[in-house]
Amino acid sequence: MDRAGGGAHNRLMGDTYVGARTPRREDSRLLTGKARYVGNVRLPGMAYAVVVRSPVAHARLLGCDAKAARAADGVLDVIVPADAEGLRLPCVTLAPGQRMTSYPVLDTVVRYVGQPVAVVVATGPEAARDAADLLDLDLEELPAVVGPERAVEPDAPLLHPEWGANTVTDFVIGDPDCEAAFEGAAHVVEMTFRIGRVSPHPMEPRGVVASYDDGELTIRIATQAPHHVREHVADAFGLPHDRVRVVGGDTGGGFGGKEHVYPDEVLVCLAAMRLGRPVSWTESPGDRLVSTLPARAAVHRGRLALHADGRFAALHVDVLGDLGAHPSNVGTSPLAVTATTIPGPYRFERVAVRLRAAVTTTTPTGSYRGFGQPEATWTRERLVDEAARRLGLDPVELRLRNMIEPGELPCTTRMGQTYDSGDYPRALRTLRDLVAMKDDVPAKDDGRRRGVGYSCHVESTGLGPSMDMKAMGMLAGGYETAVLRMEQDASVTVSSGVVGMGQGIETTLAQLAADHVGVPIDRVRVVLGDTGTSPYSSIGSIASRSLTVGGGAVIRGAARLREKLLAIAAHRLEAAPGDLELDGSEIRVKGDPRSSVPLREVATLAWRGWDLPGGVAPGLEERVSYDPAACTFAYGAHAAAVAVDPETGAVELEGYWVVNDSGVLVNPSIVEGQLRGGVTQGIGMALTEEIVYSDDGQPITDYLIPTTREVPDIEVVLLETPSPVTPGGMKGVGESGTIGPPAAIGNAVAAALPELAGRVTDLPLTPQVLWRLRG
Amino acid sequence: MDRAGGGAHNRLMGDTYVGARTPRREDSRLLTGKARYVGNVRLPGMAYAVVVRSPVAHARLLGCDAKAARAADGVLDVIVPADAEGLRLPCVTLAPGQRMTSYPVLDTVVRYVGQPVAVVVATGPEAARDAADLLDLDLEELPAVVGPERAVEPDAPLLHPEWGANTVTDFVIGDPDCEAAFEGAAHVVEMTFRIGRVSPHPMEPRGVVASYDDGELTIRIATQAPHHVREHVADAFGLPHDRVRVVGGDTGGGFGGKEHVYPDEVLVCLAAMRLGRPVSWTESPGDRLVSTLPARAAVHRGRLALHADGRFAALHVDVLGDLGAHPSNVGTSPLAVTATTIPGPYRFERVAVRLRAAVTTTTPTGSYRGFGQPEATWTRERLVDEAARRLGLDPVELRLRNMIEPGELPCTTRMGQTYDSGDYPRALRTLRDLVAMKDDVPAKDDGRRRGVGYSCHVESTGLGPSMDMKAMGMLAGGYETAVLRMEQDASVTVSSGVVGMGQGIETTLAQLAADHVGVPIDRVRVVLGDTGTSPYSSIGSIASRSLTVGGGAVIRGAARLREKLLAIAAHRLEAAPGDLELDGSEIRVKGDPRSSVPLREVATLAWRGWDLPGGVAPGLEERVSYDPAACTFAYGAHAAAVAVDPETGAVELEGYWVVNDSGVLVNPSIVEGQLRGGVTQGIGMALTEEIVYSDDGQPITDYLIPTTREVPDIEVVLLETPSPVTPGGMKGVGESGTIGPPAAIGNAVAAALPELAGRVTDLPLTPQVLWRLRG
Repeated sequence: MDRAGGGAHNRLMGDTYVGARTPRREDSRLLTGKARYVGNVRLPGMAYAVVVRSPVAHARLLGCDAKAARAADGVLDVIVPADAEGLRLPCVTLAPGQRMTSYPVLDTVVRYVGQPVAVVVATGPEAARDAADLLDLDLEELPAVVGPERAVEPDAPLLHPEWGANTVTDFVIGDPDCEAAFEGAAHVVEMTFRIGRVSPHPMEPRGVVASYDDGELTIRIATQAPHHVREHVADAFGLPHDRVRVVGGDTGGGFGGKEHVYPDEVLVCLAAMRLGRPVSWTESPGDRLVSTLPARAAVHRGRLALHADGRFAALHVDVLGDLGAHPSNVGTSPLAVTATTIPGPYRFERVAVRLRAAVTTTTPTGSYRGFGQPEATWTRERLVDEAARRLGLDPVELRLRNMIEPGELPCTTRMGQTYDSGDYPRALRTLRDLVAMKDDVPAKDDGRRRGVGYSCHVESTGLGPSMDMKAMGMLAGGYETAVLRMEQDASVTVSSGVVGMGQGIETTLAQLAADHVGVPIDRVRVVLGDTGTSPYSSIGSIASRSLTVGGGAVIRGAARLREKLLAIAAHRLEAAPGDLELDGSEIRVKGDPRSSVPLREVATLAWRGWDLPGGVAPGLEERVSYDPAACTFAYGAHAAAVAVDPETGAVELEGYWVVNDSGVLVNPSIVEGQLRGGVTQGIGMALTEEIVYSDDGQPITDYLIPTTREVPDIEVVLLETPSPVTPGGMKGVGESGTIGPPAAIGNAVAAALPELAGRVTDLPLTPQVLWRLRG
Repeated sequence: MDRAGGGAHNRLMGDTYVGARTPRREDSRLLTGKARYVGNVRLPGMAYAVVVRSPVAHARLLGCDAKAARAADGVLDVIVPADAEGLRLPCVTLAPGQRMTSYPVLDTVVRYVGQPVAVVVATGPEAARDAADLLDLDLEELPAVVGPERAVEPDAPLLHPEWGANTVTDFVIGDPDCEAAFEGAAHVVEMTFRIGRVSPHPMEPRGVVASYDDGELTIRIATQAPHHVREHVADAFGLPHDRVRVVGGDTGGGFGGKEHVYPDEVLVCLAAMRLGRPVSWTESPGDRLVSTLPARAAVHRGRLALHADGRFAALHVDVLGDLGAHPSNVGTSPLAVTATTIPGPYRFERVAVRLRAAVTTTTPTGSYRGFGQPEATWTRERLVDEAARRLGLDPVELRLRNMIEPGELPCTTRMGQTYDSGDYPRALRTLRDLVAMKDDVPAKDDGRRRGVGYSCHVESTGLGPSMDMKAMGMLAGGYETAVLRMEQDASVTVSSGVVGMGQGIETTLAQLAADHVGVPIDRVRVVLGDTGTSPYSSIGSIASRSLTVGGGAVIRGAARLREKLLAIAAHRLEAAPGDLELDGSEIRVKGDPRSSVPLREVATLAWRGWDLPGGVAPGLEERVSYDPAACTFAYGAHAAAVAVDPETGAVELEGYWVVNDSGVLVNPSIVEGQLRGGVTQGIGMALTEEIVYSDDGQPITDYLIPTTREVPDIEVVLLETPSPVTPGGMKGVGESGTIGPPAAIGNAVAAALPELAGRVTDLPLTPQVLWRLRG
């Protein structure tokens, strides 16, 4: 591990916890069956809801006869579209030209299999399920539209006829003269890529328990963004924001799928408000497949222009995204992130992306770990490898020749992103050395074709600067607030608007607070995920920002708390604050061990309001916001070694290597865990996972998440270049692992099958896909 | 009603809510059965506790055989003293010389009937009660000591033999040369007064539901001071303060009795921690009589010296207080308040109090509305009336002759209290005029003797300055903190550490916030009484401080919130903040109706962190503390008209008048309600209520709370001299009503029976007491 790095925000001298492999404190709950999952909530009088969904892809709902369902045993309520009139959820991120800014939670036109059409509430879940079968839906079917390429054909049926087209947005980002760069280029590589529709599968399904009492709606929900839920549900019902309390508990994995508010969840709140008793709903596996928002689905026509010497002249990608039935909460923004991150770690003279997005009669697409970046990396890195193959160059050498050198940083890309710090070539060279060690082991001669592939990326983390987000049309500020309170017993409570969802943020925030206040970590408690007690966070734990932005606020709050403690102690000890040191349980005058005051005494004075120096307010609670001036950029290089069975098209991963730099490592074990988990999801996206629809819009998926059988040992090397942007020097790492695998694996497959390399374009690379390529 | 008054902190011009008879918002819960009382809490798996109490006044507990109880149906646990070893509660206020600083929650020596000796926990309350009868207590009885006069006799048995005496403290406050002033005085009136032991009887009994989960102890409790409970319970168990959450809900009356933490409550927490399931306990009427701390019990030897012209030369009172079995949480402080408030509204050349307190084998005494002030007023005002009688002066005239004139204010009494503002003679003259109107109605000739009595007092409110309290040995700061948060929808949430206990503070804080922020009151919500969400308050709602100190913080927080709103709007409107006005739902440039911005938009900008002026942090949450520089002094004059049946000694109240000045009236209806309720409790103390013990320490009480039969119409006139101390000019009023009645009624009885006047010394003036006087 490298800790040399430069940068203004290097570690504190004398850090005790930052950098240590502190055991994850949340695991004492998560691994012992004590996690606070929504499915474990039991409230007196709780009823159970089942969401009834459309069985067809596109239809007018002419009627919904609930008579039989209402009369069924145990049924308490049935909600049909007429009961939910006016209840809408917003499309938060709006693309240029996007007409739809909100959508009804129950509509009378259905546009995907799985769209909610009614809710049945009963005394038990079985009774609700049984009664749901009694609902009589009168559906007038309309033609399905599957795939964005079909959606933009002139004769495609229209999902929203009033728009006149299925295209939601069509605009260009980047150099307006990019096209011209291709005309005189020495080499142009052009490929069209189809990126499959995949779906986050957290361990804990989505779920909600809503209760309504004395004008207050309490929502216990698996979410990455409790305040986001609060705002959108309060606005939907016209409740004052303060009368909605959202309690997240332990969210059992999010991966982006839990950053949205779903119609299901609003409907369960409506049921609780109608009944005046708590209502519980948990997503079933069937629900998950059709209602939890999937992601990625896009077609990229990519072109890379090179000079004769191999230098990159221009990169152009025509992105056509599949929005599903309507723009979701995040709408086209994953596609926009694909565009802004398309340059990766390379110098290009020109870069542009044409970005189109279309609606189709499929489940709306949303957010998934990586958020457009695995797609960008796939397309760019496949183009680079194909260029190397055609030019007869070593793909690593071609990359290094075009790579931004550390001396060039900070630098702003053609897409307007300012890379802050790092050494991209070093990551790739380190990776090559790692892979070379594997090359020493001779491959088995088993008739399979073998290849090694590489991919490099630069990753936008730490969303983000408020003004940036406003430009993106997001209704959110990018800052985070931390509250640090020291009690009279010198214990410290940290509360933050970011959310624990298994990623270890409870531990890493405790490490930061313990070091920056100066107390033992077992005196620090971290409280997250409850709008009743957590500070406001408009966007929550998404976009690899919990540690960089949430942690940045904790560091600043800790510094303020420490400063106040030292000021009070200085007054008490008749010393200057600068002459004092805080050491775990006491504050003492440096070099004078007899002159000290216990921390408990200082804390007690503060709370009691006694003997405080002038201008110091009583209490010991610091509430500090950190509004980042810019995003901070992590980066990585990945390599995969594959063996492809030429008979079956089956791909086996024989090795996987990651070199990653996410700035200051607060907890290397957690960073490694995040990377390995992310790589595993990337492997799924590369090889096995896809939600497939028939032409009439029926999902016909056997959705295969990779198991230990598909995932090899993942070798991880961590570089550590501090971020000059973030207090503490951290960069995000939560999504990093997902970005490289599809491209590294695709390049490895192409290397194994050079005769087919130019046609390795579609994800996932299932046996069927490869087998067909051979034909 | 008089609103002329002077003072720097008069009302805001244009107040909408302050001064209005805004309906009490808490009544929508309290009057419709929806109050959040502890007895209504039902938690899954909840068990029920019964506290087993000593049947004797003084004994060694040699054994407590729980075998049969443990084996009884439904019993889950039995806690005996050995199980609670080390669990102690603190004597928070320490008097000079007080040796005891804490006491065990379960002791092996019992010192009063009702002292907890064990706890039985069962699946239901009946099972717990039945099993409690099976406990076999082995008690070695010791002699009882009843009454403080007996306790200080040289041959009295000792409760704590290691102290060598039953006296806990013995010191003098006031003028050291006071005694000398009596030697040459023209007149000296000396009387010895015995003040009965009374007990607060709130509508909601004490109760607690404790639950312990994942290291967190949650205590739902009827309390006036949630943070006080949190600290003392956490310290008792050695838990970090932050792992104890205290939820007060709606406390159904406190009157001082709920400012303490009781052994019962700690034991219920212990039971919950042992069992790992919630445990509920509610005080029974039998519990209440022997375990809820009573108050007042004291003997005063009072001496008043007068010059020949009736001017007061000196006042000396020898106070001997009855602490019960040991000093409680508040210990001798009610006696200290008797001492410091003894001068009342008069000029005395010398004042001193000798303060002694003794332990007796009775329930420890604690806090009760008025806290030493009804006793001080009784003694002083009875002495004044008796002096008038002996000197042949009109008692009102004698008072006026000695009363501090408004021009003398502010002035510091011989006891060190600084009276801030008011017009004491005006209150008394107004009262006399009111009573004179009644005199026009001829009294019935029914053989009863009639009289009118007066009393005047000055009342210390708004506890209080932190340094003052430190001098009193209280482990508490006197400041309060308010949090004012405006949501994006422009609704405002106010949270405060003070507690709603039926007194209407939820309404009055909303009135203050609405006026001082500038929004409609229905956009303001007030949240109180939960350490998880309320700011820290070390002493809570006691000592007539909720509105003055808690409200002072709200006013300051509201001003800060308003200032931030104006700053953001000014930036938005390109105007100077001073040119703007906030009017309910928008901020506009004065005189330019077209230049305005909706409040919702300003709030949204603030939370999203967009377009904020330089130096303005995102968010709209102001957390402001107010630490009063001094107490603020309310005052009042009371008059009572009585008819005494000479045959039976029965006293009927035929009229009652109050003139009260508690500064700025935030809500006159609430002030009048507080005064009438307080007077009713004062009538009980004067005429009917007393906890009586037999010589062997058994309570033999028929405790009679006054009913509508005993309470006449109470005529209230409100004066309104703003406090120059408090933001907003308010003074406390919660206790005011209780202070005057015993003295006014006692003086009326003395006036009705002039032949016995010098012997009207003991409270309550029951028929038995008066009948005996005649004999």
